[in-house]
Amino acid sequence: MKLHESAHAPNPRRVRIFIAEKGIEVPRVQVDIGKRENRGPAFLALNPLGGVPVLELDDGRTIAESVAICRYFEEVHPEPPLMGVGPEDCAIVEMWNRRMELEVMRRITDAFRHTHEFFKGRITQVPEYGETRQREVPEQLVWLDEVLADRPFMAGDRFSIADITALVGIDFGRVIGVRIDPELKNLSRWHESVSARPSAQA
Amino acid sequence: MKLHESAHAPNPRRVRIFIAEKGIEVPRVQVDIGKRENRGPAFLALNPLGGVPVLELDDGRTIAESVAICRYFEEVHPEPPLMGVGPEDCAIVEMWNRRMELEVMRRITDAFRHTHEFFKGRITQVPEYGETRQREVPEQLVWLDEVLADRPFMAGDRFSIADITALVGIDFGRVIGVRIDPELKNLSRWHESVSARPSAQA
Repeated sequence: MKLHESAHAPNPRRVRIFIAEKGIEVPRVQVDIGKRENRGPAFLALNPLGGVPVLELDDGRTIAESVAICRYFEEVHPEPPLMGVGPEDCAIVEMWNRRMELEVMRRITDAFRHTHEFFKGRITQVPEYGETRQREVPEQLVWLDEVLADRPFMAGDRFSIADITALVGIDFGRVIGVRIDPELKNLSRWHESVSARPSAQA
Repeated sequence: MKLHESAHAPNPRRVRIFIAEKGIEVPRVQVDIGKRENRGPAFLALNPLGGVPVLELDDGRTIAESVAICRYFEEVHPEPPLMGVGPEDCAIVEMWNRRMELEVMRRITDAFRHTHEFFKGRITQVPEYGETRQREVPEQLVWLDEVLADRPFMAGDRFSIADITALVGIDFGRVIGVRIDPELKNLSRWHESVSARPSAQA
């Protein structure tokens, strides 16, 4: 088994933190996105969409999409649970993970993709869209602060994949100037707490 | 248990088809999006993000996000499996469902949201972004045609949530003129086959 990933891209960090929390070691292959290695034929054979990370199984099958890779590890290595326990909890964790991805992380990565030099020539950039997305980020962070008013983690009492997605999204936001306002006490406390876990260094 | 949903929005249809495939009946409450009922206090108490569908459990807890609702029903009613069987297959189905959602359905709904009259005043529209997204749809359909060259369904030999997401996305595309080119024989065959399932009427 091999994990094809890139040290500086946000999605691979989601998987690295996820497997670090579970204590799983997987051999890694670095893909140089800066040099567009992910757009070359060898990588496209692993994932025709060109995205990292990709998990290559021993039988040669490949799993792309960070959350799908996390699902695989959750199934083969259930402890500690990071995607919920039982039908209601699994659904609630999935809801919060999707909210963190679609409302928070994706807003930040859209802003980056549509305004940053790095994506010039890689996608059809629409700077106005990127700016709109970026302007919406602060209100999302206020919402997260409210969410965390009565609980330690995004999906409830237990650290989960939703915290990983939120952490990775917010931390990646640094490249476009996203910062947590210290007035957001709950979100600041959460960020300090999840950043202090050893997995956050992964 | 109650499913709060809207007859004409794409995401609720994903859940309706999913539960129809499993033969589950759930009482439904219609939410009138046209009248912005989903932005009123009663609905925001169910889902602060204002999105449909929302599953209200008997204990009062609520699950938003279509895929999270599907996950709940998959866990409590595993047959027939629509989200995979075993670690590898679950991960592969999740990968394909995410691809159908993020690459196909979302491109189409982004095009709609950013160009259509319906969303004027509801979101900050960036028509150039919507047009860019729409222009990218045909090449996605060509890709799906290739994907389906050697298998009956999006994630392999078994009908799954990935087919539901693709069907709902493509069908919703009609409102912005998305059509499957009859030259795309595999995709056309797939569309005819999944549309003929009784669940497609849900």
